[in-house]
Amino acid sequence: MEMAHAALTAILDCIDEGVVACDLDGNITFINRAMCRIHGVTEAKLRPEEWAKHFDLFGPDGKTPLDMTEIPLYRALHGVDVTNQEVVVKPKGGKPVNLLISGRQLIDRDGARIGAVISAHDITATKKNDEQLHQSQKFDSIGTMAGGVAHDFNNILTVIMGACTLLKIKTKSDPELEPFVRQIMNSSERAAQLTQNLLVFGRRQNLRLLPAEINEIMLAMNEILGQIVGKNVQLVTITCPVPLPVVIDREQFEQAIMYLATNASDAMPSGGELLIEVTMADSGELVLGLDRRPNVSYARIAVTDTGAGMDMVTMSRIFEPFYLKTENGRGAGLGLSMAYGIIRQHEGVITVNSEPGKGSTFSIYLPIRTTSPHEINNG
Amino acid sequence: MEMAHAALTAILDCIDEGVVACDLDGNITFINRAMCRIHGVTEAKLRPEEWAKHFDLFGPDGKTPLDMTEIPLYRALHGVDVTNQEVVVKPKGGKPVNLLISGRQLIDRDGARIGAVISAHDITATKKNDEQLHQSQKFDSIGTMAGGVAHDFNNILTVIMGACTLLKIKTKSDPELEPFVRQIMNSSERAAQLTQNLLVFGRRQNLRLLPAEINEIMLAMNEILGQIVGKNVQLVTITCPVPLPVVIDREQFEQAIMYLATNASDAMPSGGELLIEVTMADSGELVLGLDRRPNVSYARIAVTDTGAGMDMVTMSRIFEPFYLKTENGRGAGLGLSMAYGIIRQHEGVITVNSEPGKGSTFSIYLPIRTTSPHEINNG
Repeated sequence: MEMAHAALTAILDCIDEGVVACDLDGNITFINRAMCRIHGVTEAKLRPEEWAKHFDLFGPDGKTPLDMTEIPLYRALHGVDVTNQEVVVKPKGGKPVNLLISGRQLIDRDGARIGAVISAHDITATKKNDEQLHQSQKFDSIGTMAGGVAHDFNNILTVIMGACTLLKIKTKSDPELEPFVRQIMNSSERAAQLTQNLLVFGRRQNLRLLPAEINEIMLAMNEILGQIVGKNVQLVTITCPVPLPVVIDREQFEQAIMYLATNASDAMPSGGELLIEVTMADSGELVLGLDRRPNVSYARIAVTDTGAGMDMVTMSRIFEPFYLKTENGRGAGLGLSMAYGIIRQHEGVITVNSEPGKGSTFSIYLPIRTTSPHEINNG
Repeated sequence: MEMAHAALTAILDCIDEGVVACDLDGNITFINRAMCRIHGVTEAKLRPEEWAKHFDLFGPDGKTPLDMTEIPLYRALHGVDVTNQEVVVKPKGGKPVNLLISGRQLIDRDGARIGAVISAHDITATKKNDEQLHQSQKFDSIGTMAGGVAHDFNNILTVIMGACTLLKIKTKSDPELEPFVRQIMNSSERAAQLTQNLLVFGRRQNLRLLPAEINEIMLAMNEILGQIVGKNVQLVTITCPVPLPVVIDREQFEQAIMYLATNASDAMPSGGELLIEVTMADSGELVLGLDRRPNVSYARIAVTDTGAGMDMVTMSRIFEPFYLKTENGRGAGLGLSMAYGIIRQHEGVITVNSEPGKGSTFSIYLPIRTTSPHEINNG
């Protein structure tokens, strides 16, 4: 199928995939419009020899710079069939873009090698969406399990505590038996608390939702938070200049904040600063992703510590029940998981942002509203 | 940057992305080599007017045919900016391909609309890999939680059962107290069984690995499996003509098979057939995905029932602890989750394949080997 030159040019310029070609010496000979857009360069100022000055290339982590020999076009030119190599492009002064790049040798109709060509597929948006979807599915599954475990153990504990109560009545006068009965009762109560915590994570509580104002709540919590973090940690609270009405179960919400403060305090054993900031969420904060509803604004409560921070893997799993406890042996229990469950049940979002050595920021996002949506109790 | 006609043709033919263009009347004017490959047509026999006869187009589920107005090229021609629309292409007689398609109007240098163009990115392989990775991460998380819950409850149960044992000794002669003590002990034992099941799912058992042969094991299990499925279900076992040596904890493995048989039996309350087939796994069985090791062959034990079958969502969650119990109210307990944990701890894979109304096949894949890899105990 023979096409006019103008039509081929139009095709390459109109497609959404970025395309770059080079000659046998590696000189760029062609860049289409999409690739210019992806790399943050306008066609007007683009000269092939300056092309590569406009951006930096990194591996999938967005941090490790690519060696020359890892650059897809270089690899393709050297005979490698590159298929879906993940690369992060950071245009100078622009936002990073995640690309899947495939590359091939450029062969003309007569079978002669004339250079190499790569095509780039922008996965920035899909990657974020997929990750959020999978995070959310994962927590649904863990929540289902938490609810199931709690339900089964609760049934058993009800029997044990019932029998134990009767034993207690019947043996009260017997100093030889009483300690054992008390031990059973205390242990059962600890187990019941554990199942209760699992239910909080699994979002199976009954919320008592009432209108409240976030700044007011956070100021009122100053004293208790000060007690939680202790003398070595300086507590700084910055409220928002505008009122932020929300509809929440105040007791539960305060509990979630206390879990975050406890976690922050644990992360700073030799002292530091705990910063609590209340703001209107930036409309550009992509992090809300899946849960963002159109026309809903969010209040943000950011809890920042100056502790040890954490790596990507820990961040992606920190809200999972028992993750900290079993993986790090830090014994943090279910606090963060319960905070997660409470905020999610409020139709809010909780996120963490951290780097090793740079402290951590936990952010709670709650929908701003003055009346209770009728469906929230079933959430 | 002006390029020769031949070079532009080479670029479009060498890139890995599929490209198709049409004129303003919707007639196909250009198809590049990658798009031909994706759609299972060779360039030689391709005439534009016959293009669409060679394949069928479906939505992301791979089943719902696309209406004309949902076809990306059609949408692009009618002015829609199509971005990453997921489409499944089934070439006649070929395997389905998952594509992300973007489409735009085709505009020439002078700004005149001359048709439409789409580019297609093949995500068949990455989609499968991503799904397997996320399934595996999800199960890791649920396993971590199962282990954590079991550990905490075990500690509590140890105290309760210890105190209860002493109470039992001291109150044996007292008929008024004995029933309550017995009730506490029985309930504690049920709770201990539950934590034990969670540990099996969480792969925290000690395996006693010994060489065994799958055909022999399955034949030896015929009687017990017959008892499990009962009189209304016909049990058919087909062994493999070649011996399939594996290294397993026989008791645990048999347990896993019994869980599958119990599940199959539950799915056929009014009778049916339970087919057990032992084969060498097809080297093309992609399903092993992430866990497949190079140079390792697998034995496959397929357990097929003629029961109600299940939909995609249930399939993707069926091995999760408490999923069946809480979501379907079928009370299937932890059997399938334990089977999953046991097989995974053997470095095997367990999968399910089903459709509503068409029964289900659970397949266990175990690495064929004669000696125990030293690291398996820590798996």
